[in-house]
Amino acid sequence: MQIEGLSINLATIREQCGFAEAVDVCLKHGITAIAPWRDQVAAIGLDEAVRIVRANGLKLTGLCRGGFFPAADAAGRHKAFDDNRRAIDEAAALGADCLVLVVGGLPGGSRDIDRARRMVEEGIAAVLPHARAADVPLAIEPLHPMYAADRACVNTLGQALDICEAVGPGVGVAIDVYHVWWDPDLANQIARAGRMKAILAHHICDWLVPTRDMLTDRGMMGDGVIDLKGIRGQIEAADFFGAQEVEIFSAENWWKRPAEEVIATCVERFRSCC
Amino acid sequence: MQIEGLSINLATIREQCGFAEAVDVCLKHGITAIAPWRDQVAAIGLDEAVRIVRANGLKLTGLCRGGFFPAADAAGRHKAFDDNRRAIDEAAALGADCLVLVVGGLPGGSRDIDRARRMVEEGIAAVLPHARAADVPLAIEPLHPMYAADRACVNTLGQALDICEAVGPGVGVAIDVYHVWWDPDLANQIARAGRMKAILAHHICDWLVPTRDMLTDRGMMGDGVIDLKGIRGQIEAADFFGAQEVEIFSAENWWKRPAEEVIATCVERFRSCC
Repeated sequence: MQIEGLSINLATIREQCGFAEAVDVCLKHGITAIAPWRDQVAAIGLDEAVRIVRANGLKLTGLCRGGFFPAADAAGRHKAFDDNRRAIDEAAALGADCLVLVVGGLPGGSRDIDRARRMVEEGIAAVLPHARAADVPLAIEPLHPMYAADRACVNTLGQALDICEAVGPGVGVAIDVYHVWWDPDLANQIARAGRMKAILAHHICDWLVPTRDMLTDRGMMGDGVIDLKGIRGQIEAADFFGAQEVEIFSAENWWKRPAEEVIATCVERFRSCC
Repeated sequence: MQIEGLSINLATIREQCGFAEAVDVCLKHGITAIAPWRDQVAAIGLDEAVRIVRANGLKLTGLCRGGFFPAADAAGRHKAFDDNRRAIDEAAALGADCLVLVVGGLPGGSRDIDRARRMVEEGIAAVLPHARAADVPLAIEPLHPMYAADRACVNTLGQALDICEAVGPGVGVAIDVYHVWWDPDLANQIARAGRMKAILAHHICDWLVPTRDMLTDRGMMGDGVIDLKGIRGQIEAADFFGAQEVEIFSAENWWKRPAEEVIATCVERFRSCC
């Protein structure tokens, strides 16, 4: 039986499976939407990944990830442009709904977050013509403020939407509940994103209490404090009905369990909690 | 020689010193402004703490902490009111500039952060008459969003100022750079706080890359990525010239060093980085 509305970000079982095995587990559980990471695609080869996607009629709710635009010098910034153009080409080949952008943090030694944010906007503008030509929407993913220094200096949905407005068509947002659930302005900004037709992806997991690691202690839906149904309601009211994509980094729990168990739990929790 | 403009939050050397010893170390380094925690005061006794403060002409830039208003039931909320009133009385006895409020997160089992936020505003309003009568300003400290679930559901300066406006005179904000440095709206909100004459305290430390623990891995000023001088400039432009209060929780580094070394380093870094 096919599960509608559920996608699995393959990072969720990255420690257990390569691309092909992950697809098999998803298909076995009726899941036909996935979101792979570039390293997972590279490990099997782009052509083989494309073949598997087409042979199984898979939907790709996103390719992870482009971004990391800020750099200490022009050479570093241009290197990022080149890498993003390659990522766009890979997303196009795979037929992904969008290329997810984790925009990058402060260049080494910098304390100037405003400048890093300008570099992000400039970087997106620089690669946008390539994305438009390839018909690959760019999805800015605002990351939790605890990643502002080292992963992404775009930390609220409002900030991401400001960039979308500044750079023009072809750019939207990936809304990951883990990163934005705390934002007192979240409901307003989801509604704004809807008016802008800018919602490209909806990622889910949960925020655990306590959280034991800043990067790899995300929770399974239902095990934490995020109002998943409430946020989904806001997102659907903003006219996005695309799949909910499960993305869980969990070094001490879900990455240690069999992939079959993880995916079965995703299905069960998607039905009961989302 | 007395150091002007520097205060030490006694949590910075809480593992090494009790209240009296901490005061001695500060005085030895020319520091006459401190901010103690209630458990440190309780350990020596309020009367003795007051005696030490008066005997040495110490300035208290704050007492930590009141707050923790959200609770699952009315009994829990009223217990918090009572505890906050006691904290106000202690702050008054000590002559503290303000009582710092860490407002509290989600009650156990709750996923309703909006409701928790309403309970915070109601809680502050409930104890405000007592604070006004005691002439103790309440300082809402917005905490980093990574603490939204379990410590404080007020996570931006803007949100804290909204509460100040809602409840009226007697409440302001404590601006801790660790919690707010990432906020894209920070400069605007600091200026707004200035117009409201709401800035009651300015706490400093630094954000380390990487940060190894969500609670106890704060950095010494200069060791991280926060633009301390830039933020201080904004705060002084907003007409706050009170002391900068060093508050460092550092289980694996500064809490393991001799208090003398920690305080000497605070003085040196205050002079060079702030």
